[in-house]
Amino acid sequence: MKKIGVILSGCGVFDGSEIHESVATLAALDKHGLQAVCLAPDIEQMHVINHYSQTVAEGESRNVLVESARIARGNIKPLQSDSMDDLDGLMLPGGFGAAKNLSDYAVNGNQMTVIPIVSEILQKAYQDKKPIAALCIAPVVLTKVLSGQNPILTLGADGADAENINQMGGRHQATTHEEVVLDVKNRLVTGPCYMLDANIGQIMRGADAVVKKLKELL
Amino acid sequence: MKKIGVILSGCGVFDGSEIHESVATLAALDKHGLQAVCLAPDIEQMHVINHYSQTVAEGESRNVLVESARIARGNIKPLQSDSMDDLDGLMLPGGFGAAKNLSDYAVNGNQMTVIPIVSEILQKAYQDKKPIAALCIAPVVLTKVLSGQNPILTLGADGADAENINQMGGRHQATTHEEVVLDVKNRLVTGPCYMLDANIGQIMRGADAVVKKLKELL
Repeated sequence: MKKIGVILSGCGVFDGSEIHESVATLAALDKHGLQAVCLAPDIEQMHVINHYSQTVAEGESRNVLVESARIARGNIKPLQSDSMDDLDGLMLPGGFGAAKNLSDYAVNGNQMTVIPIVSEILQKAYQDKKPIAALCIAPVVLTKVLSGQNPILTLGADGADAENINQMGGRHQATTHEEVVLDVKNRLVTGPCYMLDANIGQIMRGADAVVKKLKELL
Repeated sequence: MKKIGVILSGCGVFDGSEIHESVATLAALDKHGLQAVCLAPDIEQMHVINHYSQTVAEGESRNVLVESARIARGNIKPLQSDSMDDLDGLMLPGGFGAAKNLSDYAVNGNQMTVIPIVSEILQKAYQDKKPIAALCIAPVVLTKVLSGQNPILTLGADGADAENINQMGGRHQATTHEEVVLDVKNRLVTGPCYMLDANIGQIMRGADAVVKKLKELL
């Protein structure tokens, strides 16, 4: 059974991994006969957002690995330099965690940086010709790390975020619900999910379409 | 579109709602043309479990409504006395939150109590002949509140938890993956989900099977 590393970034759309997209990813991998290996960096979150009031929870701090473990039911490993050794591909669900914890895109836009361990792992996957999938806002992380390869990716509709992709060396392709952008040369698969105003059914089917293409690249 | 109240109990299997079952519930409701209305009691959690180390996070406290909002992407209301007025049925995903926050089953077993607002809402739903579905461990809450009706429910395999159901006035029926127990007289639908050693595909299909029966009762 091929193993796909699922890189989580916390637990909750506003400060971590988007939960529906993460579960949709795990369910789609299972459905397509791929083994999910949940991974997350052992770092503090940028901040904690109270998801009820949608304001910053002042004075609170949470760890990305510890919170991601909620989505993984405890079955998760810290992301580290040798994480790719045992994996056949990678997948990154979306949520603000990709833009706040895995990178600083939420703060710095197209002047973003990606945290070293995520950058290292993505580069290793790319160099070893292992495919990488990403949902929602997570393609910005791929764009930054693989900017020299002019990756073709989607963030859903055209607009400010799409323009940032182009300015960072990527090529944005607009998509609507459940559409997938496939960059065969770079072995990348991306889908818009909650970058569009979507319902949960569209998320489940959107993640499934991305995993189906990811499997074809393995 | 019929509206189903989804009662959440936090965010994470060990101290709140089981995330996969909760997302599976929301996805299945959407698939079957039912509108999910997420609800949670505005109370403190019994405790916080670090899901990575699987130990109690000493000194931490979290609110059930605020954490449940992570699963609901902020689209959630506090559970209150008039919550049933606008709803056609209820569904309770599992996770230890049902046994630690909605009730004290995890501590007191068949001597359990259910928190007043949950007890009140379940009784209202029952009296108004609105169907109630529950997954995993959540059927213990239904058993306690509706013990006078001798409800027929499942917690998966027979064993100590099933025996508690029987001792509290319910009748346990053993099930395996994706099976559903339907109590037509009391309009209850239950499925085992992660009470069994399951993979995420079995959870998605199990919740779907429960929602399909719930819809037939509407």
